Amino acid sequence: MDEFQFIDSIKQKYYKQPSVIKGIGDDAAILRHTDEDTIVAMDTMVDEIHFSKKTTEPFHIGYRVLAANISDIAAMGGKPTSYLVSIAIPESSTLEQLHEIYEGMRALADCFQMDLIGGDTVSSNVLTITVTVIGTVKKDRVRYRSDAKIGDVIFVTGTLGDAACGLDVLLNERENLNKYTYMIERHRMPMPRVTFANACQTISRLSLNDISDGISSEANEIANASKVCLNINYEAIPKHHLLQEFSKEKVEQWVLSGGEDFELVGTVAKSNWDQLVTIAEQTNTKVTKIGTVEEDPTGNGVVLLSKENQTTVLNKSGYTHLRG
Amino acid sequence: MDEFQFIDSIKQKYYKQPSVIKGIGDDAAILRHTDEDTIVAMDTMVDEIHFSKKTTEPFHIGYRVLAANISDIAAMGGKPTSYLVSIAIPESSTLEQLHEIYEGMRALADCFQMDLIGGDTVSSNVLTITVTVIGTVKKDRVRYRSDAKIGDVIFVTGTLGDAACGLDVLLNERENLNKYTYMIERHRMPMPRVTFANACQTISRLSLNDISDGISSEANEIANASKVCLNINYEAIPKHHLLQEFSKEKVEQWVLSGGEDFELVGTVAKSNWDQLVTIAEQTNTKVTKIGTVEEDPTGNGVVLLSKENQTTVLNKSGYTHLRG
Repeated sequence: MDEFQFIDSIKQKYYKQPSVIKGIGDDAAILRHTDEDTIVAMDTMVDEIHFSKKTTEPFHIGYRVLAANISDIAAMGGKPTSYLVSIAIPESSTLEQLHEIYEGMRALADCFQMDLIGGDTVSSNVLTITVTVIGTVKKDRVRYRSDAKIGDVIFVTGTLGDAACGLDVLLNERENLNKYTYMIERHRMPMPRVTFANACQTISRLSLNDISDGISSEANEIANASKVCLNINYEAIPKHHLLQEFSKEKVEQWVLSGGEDFELVGTVAKSNWDQLVTIAEQTNTKVTKIGTVEEDPTGNGVVLLSKENQTTVLNKSGYTHLRG
Repeated sequence: MDEFQFIDSIKQKYYKQPSVIKGIGDDAAILRHTDEDTIVAMDTMVDEIHFSKKTTEPFHIGYRVLAANISDIAAMGGKPTSYLVSIAIPESSTLEQLHEIYEGMRALADCFQMDLIGGDTVSSNVLTITVTVIGTVKKDRVRYRSDAKIGDVIFVTGTLGDAACGLDVLLNERENLNKYTYMIERHRMPMPRVTFANACQTISRLSLNDISDGISSEANEIANASKVCLNINYEAIPKHHLLQEFSKEKVEQWVLSGGEDFELVGTVAKSNWDQLVTIAEQTNTKVTKIGTVEEDPTGNGVVLLSKENQTTVLNKSGYTHLRG
């Protein structure tokens, strides 16, 4: 099977999105977005850096790289509509593995009626997958990190640290793997919060960020972009009950710096909090208040973490140090 | 310098395109294209596969990967407006090399007032660069490969085989390199035919393809998509006079299968030929008629090559065989 036959084999028979005027089969794809803005995000995953064959099947490699991109679209408040895949393939990869990677992407894409509209296929010594995801968003409903305001409620979706726990379980080959199936699935097949983010359109202002590197990073990104202080209560951060079996140190590391849960962290005006809770219920989404947005006297933006009645500065890395 | 500092260093101070609502600095970029369709193309280049450090400076690596993408936009009849770059970097790369790669992209992007609006930066053992280019095109001026019609004139821009010749000269370390500067520049810094493709908007129908793999491939793509016969006269294909110094066999290989000149091959109605010639003159573009579109009795599409009074079937690979 040569490159052209492979492209034919992954080419969709028809496109679900009316915005796709031309998909695979010419020099480039053509899209028509007349009423909404276009969102574009791009993410790369590299073998032995972002995934390991030891813990990840080809299907899950494909699923996760697309999930990371879709999550970026959700974090902008948008709806993912199509994607392009560029894959660099070592000679050792089999055609079956290659097809499984694309199957993993397709499984997630189908959840959102997304279309595969283009990409590239090249040779390399290292399996490298780059995905570009396109989405749409209403002009006045883009969710920027810079939109947090003093007095806002800080919230997160779901529970944090699950994917990091799942990876740890896989890497350390624990016994009773069945017991941790939920955590492993959270690592292998995280579901980006598109449905919730889209349902929030009735709220005019939200700041929003997806948790890909760990809440310590993403909370700092909101704080810096909005020039405010995010005061987060560590005890309020929702944690899955299975985490209780692990050491306090591990749990804290997973919860603050464990990425790839692809949950959302955001802030919303106090007056919209009840509305957000209702939307969460309607979309079957767990939403938890974890703190409040305050003024930052320095004007640069900062994240404070209250834990066991002590308040420390939380850095991007998850490292905390005493305030002052 | 960490990843965030690097991103800050390549971030534009302002965006030239009014369509860029949000560039680098949030989860994704936001674009607004209300009146025109959006074009998206994606290309990857891998170290030692698509370029070699022996013949290519980091600046030219960046330039060429962006050129390949812009050329795809031109081949759709569009205007490139913005781009995203995902780069996988080995530890051995220096920060200076990295900046030179981005400088090479910026040099070409500036020719078209394009903005860098996003991407990703990751580690890898193999330098791998993936670029996504976004462009715009008027709804009824998209140039598809499937739009060739019987009776059309087949044309190409520029001269073919130059980039392949330039690479050959570099690889074989010929003496008198100065003599071949033009060919080397055609390899290192090919200029995609955006200006010409955009000026053709007064013509309602064109089929168009950019020559990235060699005209044998691209002519076959038009023939197959349009289900017609492209009858090309080898002697009519424009060749730079410097090619006369090389063997007939080398020249034929470069002209038919040498890609990355990023010239255009297309077809246009006979009645529009004079108009096309005028546009070519106005945009300082060399345009040459190289054949005629005929009926293909098989209905699948075929390319015929007339050479020295013999007609053969020209395959995608550049391989020819006797007709029948």
